[in-house]
Amino acid sequence: MIRDVGPFVPAGVHFIPAHPIAGTEYSGPEAGFASLFDERWAILTPVPGSDGMAVDKLKTFWKGLGSQVDVMDSGHHDLVLAITSHLPHLIAYNIVGTAHDLEKVTEGEVIKYSASGFRDFTRIAASDPTMWRDVFLNNREAVLEVLGRFNDDLKILQDAVAQGNGDLLFDTFTRTRAIRRAIVDLGQDTAAPNFGRKS
Amino acid sequence: MIRDVGPFVPAGVHFIPAHPIAGTEYSGPEAGFASLFDERWAILTPVPGSDGMAVDKLKTFWKGLGSQVDVMDSGHHDLVLAITSHLPHLIAYNIVGTAHDLEKVTEGEVIKYSASGFRDFTRIAASDPTMWRDVFLNNREAVLEVLGRFNDDLKILQDAVAQGNGDLLFDTFTRTRAIRRAIVDLGQDTAAPNFGRKS
Repeated sequence: MIRDVGPFVPAGVHFIPAHPIAGTEYSGPEAGFASLFDERWAILTPVPGSDGMAVDKLKTFWKGLGSQVDVMDSGHHDLVLAITSHLPHLIAYNIVGTAHDLEKVTEGEVIKYSASGFRDFTRIAASDPTMWRDVFLNNREAVLEVLGRFNDDLKILQDAVAQGNGDLLFDTFTRTRAIRRAIVDLGQDTAAPNFGRKS
Repeated sequence: MIRDVGPFVPAGVHFIPAHPIAGTEYSGPEAGFASLFDERWAILTPVPGSDGMAVDKLKTFWKGLGSQVDVMDSGHHDLVLAITSHLPHLIAYNIVGTAHDLEKVTEGEVIKYSASGFRDFTRIAASDPTMWRDVFLNNREAVLEVLGRFNDDLKILQDAVAQGNGDLLFDTFTRTRAIRRAIVDLGQDTAAPNFGRKS
């Protein structure tokens, strides 16, 4: 994206790529709301030669919207977003697709019994297809890197299930709890059961 | 489970396996609340020779708790739960583990930027490790069957990302939206953005 836009920036115009880590599964101006950026983070990825004063001004802008601000290079940004956003979306789209295609379990059954875990994945799998197609086309390298790691890890769990290795499963399921707790402690999610929705 | 319990059921006692499709990431009696079963489903899996009157009585019991009731054989139950519950949990545990282990992205970054998608997975990855270890040890065959399908489907998306096949990505991302809509329409989830939690 930076590579595409860069050549078209006129002299005297500051080009500082940035975006918020906030939003919902809905798109467009009508999907906005006043507290959208409160406690969330905005990431700025200045390009070589970006003006320091302009970067500071942009920081102030985002803080004025209620956001917290981080600055990093675009390569690291792509990797951070690949694991925190792009891979979760790809996995969510994929499992909803798998459930849709199973012959032995009907779509009606998947929908009826979705409260057992499946429905958590369907929210982000309802995100805008055009935007997400473009995300994956533009962040190909980082997405494939974290997806490779995900596949390696899943193979280990798959083998543990196949071989009845309960200790490995238990250890894995235990350490993932700490991350959830840290996300809630840092105000990045609610501790209410089921995200606070009715059961 | 049915195989394990069956031999110990005394004569004159009706044994009808059943469980609700409801609950949160919290466990134990304190995690219960009055509306827990409202609009949710309970599944009964009568065994060969189960008494019809006893099955009806159990149906009435679950309906009295506010639940809807379905009856199916235990083999189909295992497959239905494998896709709607067990696979989602395995995938969620796995992606949280992958994020935890990445060297190039810190755990602090994963936590800070989790609102971009990742945090949706952390809720069910905070579920009770002992219970989930036992689920995977006891429903091995059905879990491995749906996991195989998930892996095959993910390979197709992985290739599409690697080859820049935007049409395939767009088509996949479009059809998954319909399932989300059906889940909301059937009262199995909220249509509020972000599950109704703050952004």
